[in-house]
Amino acid sequence: MLSLPSEVTIKEVGPRDGLQNEPAEILTEDKIAWIDLLSEAGYSYLEFSSFVHPKWIPQLKDAKEVAQRIKRNKDVTYAALVPNMKGLEAALATDVDEVSIFMSASDAHNRKNINKSIEETYPVLEEVVREAKSAGKSVRGYVSTVFGCPYEGDVPIQQVIDVSKRLLDMGIDELSLGDTIGVANPKQVWETLGRLEAELSFQHLAMHFHNTRGMALANILASLQRGITTFDASLGGLGGCPYAKGASGNVATDDLVHMLHQMGISTGIDEKKLEQAGTFIQEKLDKPLPSHHMQLTRNERR
Amino acid sequence: MLSLPSEVTIKEVGPRDGLQNEPAEILTEDKIAWIDLLSEAGYSYLEFSSFVHPKWIPQLKDAKEVAQRIKRNKDVTYAALVPNMKGLEAALATDVDEVSIFMSASDAHNRKNINKSIEETYPVLEEVVREAKSAGKSVRGYVSTVFGCPYEGDVPIQQVIDVSKRLLDMGIDELSLGDTIGVANPKQVWETLGRLEAELSFQHLAMHFHNTRGMALANILASLQRGITTFDASLGGLGGCPYAKGASGNVATDDLVHMLHQMGISTGIDEKKLEQAGTFIQEKLDKPLPSHHMQLTRNERR
Repeated sequence: MLSLPSEVTIKEVGPRDGLQNEPAEILTEDKIAWIDLLSEAGYSYLEFSSFVHPKWIPQLKDAKEVAQRIKRNKDVTYAALVPNMKGLEAALATDVDEVSIFMSASDAHNRKNINKSIEETYPVLEEVVREAKSAGKSVRGYVSTVFGCPYEGDVPIQQVIDVSKRLLDMGIDELSLGDTIGVANPKQVWETLGRLEAELSFQHLAMHFHNTRGMALANILASLQRGITTFDASLGGLGGCPYAKGASGNVATDDLVHMLHQMGISTGIDEKKLEQAGTFIQEKLDKPLPSHHMQLTRNERR
Repeated sequence: MLSLPSEVTIKEVGPRDGLQNEPAEILTEDKIAWIDLLSEAGYSYLEFSSFVHPKWIPQLKDAKEVAQRIKRNKDVTYAALVPNMKGLEAALATDVDEVSIFMSASDAHNRKNINKSIEETYPVLEEVVREAKSAGKSVRGYVSTVFGCPYEGDVPIQQVIDVSKRLLDMGIDELSLGDTIGVANPKQVWETLGRLEAELSFQHLAMHFHNTRGMALANILASLQRGITTFDASLGGLGGCPYAKGASGNVATDDLVHMLHQMGISTGIDEKKLEQAGTFIQEKLDKPLPSHHMQLTRNERR
């Protein structure tokens, strides 16, 4: 039997993971208009920005203004990425619904990304989780480089288990496992999830695939068969891969929603509104978005 | 259990299904040089051209010269598409190893493609199969529009079973089921294969996916789980979709080989030689090939 769930939650990360990998600068008012379009498309979750120092990610320097000016849809959880206490304080000041913390399963990537070893990262995140929880916010924890590292290559599953366990012990509400450089294959996904489920106990587990090698939808199919029902995605396949210039970014929300709906799996997302939101941001970026759906949309308009 | 085979056969259809959908005209000598590169890359099967009237597919009008001038590798089966007796005679004159016949599971597509109803097509193909077999050639039968038709929409599985049965009764050696417009989803693939395997008996069954919606690798994963071990593919994702201008064509051989090898499934194909052959035809076409692998290759060279 091809065992599949009847319902899936898609967490839109385009405004954060997508835009942070786009060289183009998008006007704050355009971002806000875009997030407002997304808010009406049927998502239950939007990661709208990141409270990191603008030196690191200038594309998201307007996180505060975006947070304050978007129209909050009560059916949507609005989340923002925070790297440390300073980021958390800025995020809390804007009354986000949820904060996301992040670290890597490989030490080399963690050092390049956060400028700390894995061991040095734990106390920083522990404080962030504690303070976020005491402010009444839920917390999502990202683990990067779960299926491979641009610097170390293969990442032993035990490291993924260790980092995941530490984050779960901090009290995070959801863990999101990231294939940061898009190297995972369906067999590896199947086996990794088997190991993790055997050794850890999850409240909520999400998968975060990049489509660098075109395997993202196949990896999602393997995850669905393992019972995973939450996936991160970026509309239109917005964003790229910082480790392979010009390569595909996150799995495209529109292509994922299409596949799920075709298989009779509901997402709550309106494909027509999704397309309108995709066309909007494509025009603002002034470049063709890489998803298959956006390709087809452009061709129909020729 | 994610049940997967240990070995898969990839049948390269780029020189036929790929090039027939490319508007650019490729010089005969370049085609020959390309097929010679493919012949050394580890494939066991190449569909090198089509003996159809040049009025219909001008890109392949040099089928005869190509057949005569390519270097035949004894480990490779060289096949060509033939629509009728005239095509078969031309193909036999060049001593091809195998011929492919084709028809659609939907009447409207069959009429547009072959200018005959499904019923009118059977006797034509019956004669082709009989004559090909008596000339000592093996015959492959393609069924198009198995998962959807550009004119009729949904195609009832019963029609696929009926057409497949008629082709099998003619004595074809392999059946290749085509998702001509790239609309199949993994659940549909799983269910269709289940129905077909229950109602027909196969010697050899192959799947022929197009990547119009980005689902080809996921569909192949579902097929692998059903025990299918033969897939058609086009290097670099060469070719497009005649029903959606600019959309992706056949599943890309390079992306498929990469996924299979990463999962520990052998194909006999050398990824480095594949890349060289992909780069060669990309230069001759003078346009970027759409596969993820070719995208990454181009970026590395920047």
